[in-house]
Amino acid sequence: MSALHHPADPVVIIGGGFAGLAAARMLGQAGVATILVDRQNHHLFQPLLYQVATAGLSPADIAAPIRTILRRWPTVSVVMDEVTGIDRARRAVRLASGAGLEFSTLIVATGARHGYFGQPGWAAHAPGIKTIDDAIRLRHQLLLALERAETMRAESRETRAEHLTFVVVGGGPTGVELAGAIAELARHAAERDFPHITRRCVRVLLVDGGARLLQAFPPSLSDAAARSLNALGVDVRLNAKVTGISAGMIMIGAEQIKAAVIAWAAGVAASPAATWLGAAADPGGRVLTGPDLALPDDPDIFVIGDTAAVPGPDGRPVPGLAPAATQMGRHVGQTIIARRSGRPAPAFRYRHAGSLATIGRSRAVADLGRARLSGHFAWLLWCAVHVWALAGFRNRLIVGTNWLWSYLTFDRAARIITQRPDLPA
Amino acid sequence: MSALHHPADPVVIIGGGFAGLAAARMLGQAGVATILVDRQNHHLFQPLLYQVATAGLSPADIAAPIRTILRRWPTVSVVMDEVTGIDRARRAVRLASGAGLEFSTLIVATGARHGYFGQPGWAAHAPGIKTIDDAIRLRHQLLLALERAETMRAESRETRAEHLTFVVVGGGPTGVELAGAIAELARHAAERDFPHITRRCVRVLLVDGGARLLQAFPPSLSDAAARSLNALGVDVRLNAKVTGISAGMIMIGAEQIKAAVIAWAAGVAASPAATWLGAAADPGGRVLTGPDLALPDDPDIFVIGDTAAVPGPDGRPVPGLAPAATQMGRHVGQTIIARRSGRPAPAFRYRHAGSLATIGRSRAVADLGRARLSGHFAWLLWCAVHVWALAGFRNRLIVGTNWLWSYLTFDRAARIITQRPDLPA
Repeated sequence: MSALHHPADPVVIIGGGFAGLAAARMLGQAGVATILVDRQNHHLFQPLLYQVATAGLSPADIAAPIRTILRRWPTVSVVMDEVTGIDRARRAVRLASGAGLEFSTLIVATGARHGYFGQPGWAAHAPGIKTIDDAIRLRHQLLLALERAETMRAESRETRAEHLTFVVVGGGPTGVELAGAIAELARHAAERDFPHITRRCVRVLLVDGGARLLQAFPPSLSDAAARSLNALGVDVRLNAKVTGISAGMIMIGAEQIKAAVIAWAAGVAASPAATWLGAAADPGGRVLTGPDLALPDDPDIFVIGDTAAVPGPDGRPVPGLAPAATQMGRHVGQTIIARRSGRPAPAFRYRHAGSLATIGRSRAVADLGRARLSGHFAWLLWCAVHVWALAGFRNRLIVGTNWLWSYLTFDRAARIITQRPDLPA
Repeated sequence: MSALHHPADPVVIIGGGFAGLAAARMLGQAGVATILVDRQNHHLFQPLLYQVATAGLSPADIAAPIRTILRRWPTVSVVMDEVTGIDRARRAVRLASGAGLEFSTLIVATGARHGYFGQPGWAAHAPGIKTIDDAIRLRHQLLLALERAETMRAESRETRAEHLTFVVVGGGPTGVELAGAIAELARHAAERDFPHITRRCVRVLLVDGGARLLQAFPPSLSDAAARSLNALGVDVRLNAKVTGISAGMIMIGAEQIKAAVIAWAAGVAASPAATWLGAAADPGGRVLTGPDLALPDDPDIFVIGDTAAVPGPDGRPVPGLAPAATQMGRHVGQTIIARRSGRPAPAFRYRHAGSLATIGRSRAVADLGRARLSGHFAWLLWCAVHVWALAGFRNRLIVGTNWLWSYLTFDRAARIITQRPDLPA
């Protein structure tokens, strides 16, 4: 076991998502010695990952090397390695490479993974999208289903219909955006290139257990989203309980539906940070923090982003959104800087700027507190916010170009199958 | 076994590379019923694949769905499937899916794969780049080597040096371009983001068994290329015979060199088309065709592109270049159209427009027959030719933007590791 050389009293950040990066930037600006560890070499702009899954963007359009993002701050260093545990007594992070990373202050920002409502067996047949590999795999499944349906003209009508049935589970922003994008990919782009697939053959289902889509939005916007999805041909099934998932098959209540692709956007579970830390967690596995986002019994260990369960000003938990993660990261950075110079640090206070979700190529819903928007103007707002929020100027340029092109031509830029997974039996 | 429904007297084309696409376009323009089969869904602009391998471009920047390229010709249909054999007696192509594809005329354009000089065991340790998956794998290897060298500061100097040694075998255009791009990736981009890797730590070797690089070019341009590579810090080893390759190790003569990455750009071997057809082939496996590019004993089976061995006007074989493949595809398309309307078809005659190879960010060599160029102007010519030649306007736009950005910022757009292959022992 070798130890990495590092400065005295370092802040160690686990995770290069929105929360970890925001903390690293803040500490870098103040010249605090900081080490950020991530198992990936890149930060991923997760809100646009569904566009990689539906062949609208390339992975590099929405990802940037963490080293590049942080290189302007010389006191921040980046380690690509996987964390396997945290030794609170010895104040060290354990790494898969065998090296140990000592900290004086620790920020845990390890994000969330998919939760399957206690049915881990569903994961293999209904993958979610959290990483680039997830998105590429879903893209392969979608494009291969179209290729197979196209050459299947001599087969029975039922077999072909299965190859053109796509199910999305979960009616939150990700599920709504994914279902809209799949409908557009399959109906418009495919209709042009696949002469034997017509609009009427394609079936996209969006399934949710609740009474309305987008529960975090006002009901009027939930209805607007459902109408926009219907206009794209998406069959929205509300109050629909998923009772089983196996290869190419989903049970909704007692109904059995065969599908080429089942995508999961329903539940998230926090990373194993609570277990690593031996800390109290909510039922979703998120660590319960104090008002300063530190562990109640350890002021030098902070937990932020989707890994933390923090009450918001309205009493409801702070949502798992990129702006919330960024706010937590900044706050913890400021707290550490304040403490090190002997100043008091205020408690964390979440400010909700608004909620946005897009439905296909030209519609969105936006809840800005007082103002509620739906339709084209909300879509333009959504575009502006997302292009602007992307990590670097270059990405902004490419994403902007790609979107403009897709909008003008109804074409999909990244419709490439790069691996042929074994065909399911 | 099901048979695909298809029109009477179809032309079947195997392969959607430059040769196959050119033939399909020509036949589509004339309204000839044509079916193109490829195991991939996309055409790949292979001359720029080394840029994907060195993180300059995304796969979708240099690939486009074959269906999209051919959709404007309604008599051309596209099947994504893998060919497993050709039944000449029954006039049918065998497909992996179990379906058969009958033809009245067949065009075989299955390209080339890597040849390892009779040492198939080397392939696992010195991968080449022919597909997107190859290029992504090489990109992972390069970027992971840098990540490991960066965190290896406490290890011995020798171990670190191995992680920063990159070897390219083969001094043709692909090898020259790859070595130049690796040197720039490792030296410039990495030097910015990896504070513990300096220029002097990085070692890039270009190994060739001949007395000069770029044998197909005039000697003065070979020298210019070697000088440009030296300026980038590439160690060019000529008259160097590779005697062995194993995991992380290459033998050059009696010298053993440990390296993080060994990339193969030395030999090509034709696809198994000669075996499928039971046809005579040259030592590289390329099918010997008549002057009309058909089999000498079967005028309705054509072999074109890198799969064919065709003598050029100077007596030397037609080179394995994209323009040559395109010329052959067009010629066979015209021959089929002429024959079907009872007109005679002329013999194929290769016209060599010139040879181009780029060395890094701003230098190239160009052999245009009478004019020989090297340096910046040749690089601008190279850019213009390649951007223009890309299959669609959209790709042209994106590639142009990416290049301009790389040029201005010395940055690499696609420096993303999306999978962590198991570390070698």
